[in-house]
Order: sequence, then structure tokens, then C-alpha cells
Amino acid sequence: MSKLFGIGVGPGDSELITVKAVNIIKNLNVIYTPIAHNGMKSTAFKIAEPYLQSKTEIKERHFPMTRNVEERQKSWQKISKEVIEDVTKGQNVGFLTLGDPSVYSTFSYIQKIVEKEIEVEIIAGISSFSQIAATLKEPLMLDDQSLTVVPATKDIDEIKKFIIDNDNLVLMKISSKFPEIYQFLKEQQLLSKAAIISNASMTNEVITYAQDLDETSKIPYFSTMIIKK
Amino acid sequence: MSKLFGIGVGPGDSELITVKAVNIIKNLNVIYTPIAHNGMKSTAFKIAEPYLQSKTEIKERHFPMTRNVEERQKSWQKISKEVIEDVTKGQNVGFLTLGDPSVYSTFSYIQKIVEKEIEVEIIAGISSFSQIAATLKEPLMLDDQSLTVVPATKDIDEIKKFIIDNDNLVLMKISSKFPEIYQFLKEQQLLSKAAIISNASMTNEVITYAQDLDETSKIPYFSTMIIKK
Repeated sequence: MSKLFGIGVGPGDSELITVKAVNIIKNLNVIYTPIAHNGMKSTAFKIAEPYLQSKTEIKERHFPMTRNVEERQKSWQKISKEVIEDVTKGQNVGFLTLGDPSVYSTFSYIQKIVEKEIEVEIIAGISSFSQIAATLKEPLMLDDQSLTVVPATKDIDEIKKFIIDNDNLVLMKISSKFPEIYQFLKEQQLLSKAAIISNASMTNEVITYAQDLDETSKIPYFSTMIIKK
Repeated sequence: MSKLFGIGVGPGDSELITVKAVNIIKNLNVIYTPIAHNGMKSTAFKIAEPYLQSKTEIKERHFPMTRNVEERQKSWQKISKEVIEDVTKGQNVGFLTLGDPSVYSTFSYIQKIVEKEIEVEIIAGISSFSQIAATLKEPLMLDDQSLTVVPATKDIDEIKKFIIDNDNLVLMKISSKFPEIYQFLKEQQLLSKAAIISNASMTNEVITYAQDLDETSKIPYFSTMIIKK
């Protein structure tokens, strides 16, 4: 039976994708991939590219990167309609997501729209925070420890509370709030406990430590901070 | 240069391992795997078995499953010494871990002992909670939400606090504390928000919902609860 597959392609390296994802990608009839304004291929697409077969039709679609919910809803509705048509025709359709489809993924919205009409299967991927721990060779958690993952898009006061309350904290996409977060870590004498990874497992991967930076440091978009007390 | 590889083999299905892990496993000289008292092969070994080459020497070692830290330390020291000897001789050595080596893994202890003497590389794997989200087709987190992962080995009062404070909560290995957790969820009227997965992605996978159980329900050892409010 034909399906929509939400496929996690992992954090960046084409080898950090599962065998299952590769086998599914090789047998897709159609693949949907976001396209940037400048026509650049998405990172998720570049990761999957070595496994794509020529029979697979590539449908590049524009996903607006905006905080305007209505505008995003409109584009998801449009793409979902097309996906439902493809699957109903008997085609196996893939939707690629960077990292893991269950972690802050646009796929979750598409899924919610289509799942009453067509079958959906989700293929887990290596999340960026899992890869960051591997790269740093630092466990995310041990023994009775907890782990909390928080996006830096949250309110800064909430972020501060999470920093205080948790032994192991992953702060995703810190670039926009870096000056405030840096200042707070300094006040709490936690600068030495915070590592930052940008573009994990990609060719432009950079590891830095908060104590080697200052408030004015420029942090790339795909940057995650891990704080271990 | 020879290394010790800490290899995440994912949650259970042999296809849910990364291409990178497969390529490394195929080229190992030695593989270490825990062995149970009854001589049964470990789950991690069974996952990796389809990729193992005949040239790879399999070293089955006993890891005591005890809360006695001294006893565990002793076994890690002994295995670490052997691993250092193998790598120093020029052999590529693999240590398999179920799920992700950065998530509650014995490998982290071995790594701490050996990393001053030999090179270590960590290959991230799909964690059980990532696979659980994929199986349930429920995102772990969306938008500005946070995710907290807590082992049920923590104190029950701490667990209760985590249940109250978090929007998305993963409770690992809940079997031992299931009656108390069930009772608390009932008091908080959260039974309808809690799903339980046992043996995720394995052939004996079972999905249940807290509202269909009661305090006396028997929960398998590899069981995780996910609470989404």
C-alpha cells in the first residue's frame, strides 16, 4: 500500500542516515523537498542525494520561513493536498527532514493535515543534539540524570529558569539570543560548562566553548549549546 | 590510526542503524559485547549481527547489572585494560550500545577510563525515545516546546515534579515505579495523556495507553512512557 514517509536524514553527514531510510529513499516514486528563495537545494536534500534513484520525481516546494502562522498554514495545506493526491494515485511519497522528524519538524504539520486520508510512516533520524554529544564525546545523560532540550526561541526568562533547574541542558538555535544567554551564564559562573556546536557533522562544523567567546561573538544559525553542570 | 568506536545500534530493528555504524562494524578487528548470566546474546549484538564479518573477533564480556558501584567499576576497569591493549596493538575495536551511546550508556564509563590512552570515536544511534515518537506518530516537540527525558530510577517525588512542570516528558524504564506513576497520573487527570511503549521497534513491540491499564498491570523492562499535555 502506498504511503507518505516522513524521513529523518540525520544531522548532516550522508552516512549518518539509517539503513531503513536509505532503503525507503531508493524506492520512492516522489520526493518533496523545501527550496530556498535563492533556489538553493535544502540541506536535507543534499544529505539524501547520494541515495536517490533517477526514477524518483523530485518536487521542490517553497516553505515560507515566517512567524506568520496563516501564511505557513496556507503553504502546508497546498503541499498536503498535492501529497494526498500522489499517495492516493498509488505512489510512495517521501518528505525529508533534517535530523529527526519528531524534533521540531515541519513534517509534523503536514502529517496532521494528511493522516486522516492517507497512511503515514515515520523513520526516525539522528537528532542534532544526539550528534553533538557524539562529536563532543560527552554523554547527554548518565545514571539518574535528566536531559532537557529547549529552543532558544522561548522567552529569555524561561530559558534562564531551565538553565538553573537542569543538570543537562540542550539549547537549540541559540544564535538569536546568544548575547543574553552569554550574559546569564557569566552571572551564574557557568561559562566553563557550556559548549557550542555549529553545523554538527557537516563539513563546516565548528566547536567552541562559551568561555572563549564574548557577548558580541557571531554565532551561525545552526548552532546548539550544551550545558553540563 | 586504530581506535575504540562506541557504536549506537539503535532501538532494535537492524535497519534502524546508521550507514556509518554499518561501515565501521564491517571493518572492526574486535567487537566487545555484554553477555547475560544465562549466556544469551545481548540485544545490541543481535541488532549488529547481520553486518558482522567473519574476520571480526567477538569478545563476550560480563557486565554486572548491579547497583554496587564498586563491582561495576571493577568490571569496567578490567574490560578497559583489555580494550586499551587491543587498540594499542593496532586493532579497530567496537563497543556496541543499544540506542545511542550518549544516552544512559555503559560505554560512557569505559570511554572515561580509556580516553587518555587511546583514541575514541562515538557513532550516534537512534535513541529509544526518538523511535517511540516515530512509532506513535506523535512529535516529541514542536514550535517553542521543550522536552525532558527522565529515568524512572529517580526519586518518585522528583518524577512527580517533572510530570507537573513539563509539556513533553519521556519517562524511561518505568516498569519498577509503574504503580506510583500510574496513581499520580490518575490524581492529576493525566491518564489520557500517557502512552507506553515496550520493546520499541523490536518484534515484541507493544503500545498501550495508561488509561487502558491499572496499578497492577505488568510492564516489561524495556518500557518507556511519553506524556504530552
